[in-house]
Amino acid sequence: MTTLVKSITLEEFLQLSETKPASEYIEGKIHQKPLPQGEHSRLQGKLVTTVNGVAEPQKTALAFPELRCVFGDAAIIPDISVFRWERIPREPSGRITNRFETYPDWAIEILSPDQSQAKVLRNLLHCSQHGTELGWLIFPEEASILTIFPNQRVEMLMGTDPLPVLSNIDLSLTVEQVLSWLTI
Amino acid sequence: MTTLVKSITLEEFLQLSETKPASEYIEGKIHQKPLPQGEHSRLQGKLVTTVNGVAEPQKTALAFPELRCVFGDAAIIPDISVFRWERIPREPSGRITNRFETYPDWAIEILSPDQSQAKVLRNLLHCSQHGTELGWLIFPEEASILTIFPNQRVEMLMGTDPLPVLSNIDLSLTVEQVLSWLTI
Repeated sequence: MTTLVKSITLEEFLQLSETKPASEYIEGKIHQKPLPQGEHSRLQGKLVTTVNGVAEPQKTALAFPELRCVFGDAAIIPDISVFRWERIPREPSGRITNRFETYPDWAIEILSPDQSQAKVLRNLLHCSQHGTELGWLIFPEEASILTIFPNQRVEMLMGTDPLPVLSNIDLSLTVEQVLSWLTI
Repeated sequence: MTTLVKSITLEEFLQLSETKPASEYIEGKIHQKPLPQGEHSRLQGKLVTTVNGVAEPQKTALAFPELRCVFGDAAIIPDISVFRWERIPREPSGRITNRFETYPDWAIEILSPDQSQAKVLRNLLHCSQHGTELGWLIFPEEASILTIFPNQRVEMLMGTDPLPVLSNIDLSLTVEQVLSWLTI
């Protein structure tokens, strides 16, 4: 993670050219996301597939990997952003917009080795403070998932604990199940 | 951190001989604390001194470093445990007991490099669920402090944010001030 010390505004940040990995802007500072690796990529891909597998046919929600969400004077990119169907920003034509200027309903972060936990947690708390109903912070090394509920209430889940999902998504998952996706 | 996979009971754990660094027991598993190092030791020492500097003369509370607290089927050792004066366990003679079989009112953990973030957070949430009013998780590398309030509500503080303390302790601190103790 690289942090620029010089403070810039959100509008200035949004004019900058893209970086790879992508950069986020929160509390006046720019942070570059870590280089995605195996475990991270597997969980991200499988979660998007699993959520969309039930939510897309039922038109209840959509999961987006690496989507920049701009809201609350920040531009963050959760590993996965899930939007309820009716909250997906659309052009008048019905086409999905390119700029998402709102919070996701469910934000998921997967901790990478050596990634700053304080920073990903801060992103999820920023989401929660601005309307996100549910957050997950997945700790692959520790087989645990921290869940974030409204009013920034948190709970650490593990093993066979059932995982909370958005109310309109027909999905039952335990922590164990999600982590078992790492073994193929 | 070492984790024994074999599950044992709390009573069995409490019969084991001490380790150095000390070991904790939570959710059926034993975890050894990391070897304490410079930043950790400095913050731990200075916080104990600062809290006791105001709380001991006023007999409002006492801060204990590395104290084993046994409650809720766990034996955990926060880096600092603060007890309100009237809740400090005492023998009939008035002397402090050796075994603390209750939760601290305020628990503080200082993240060490390479320490499991999920594990220290789990310890603090265990405290919160069992009656601890306030938790701090200090991230020295990221100059942030995660604060844990009743019902496991959390807030990430940084910079000049004022830090919450127990209501009866006459202390005003900001995140910046606490982290400035690392520079002598």
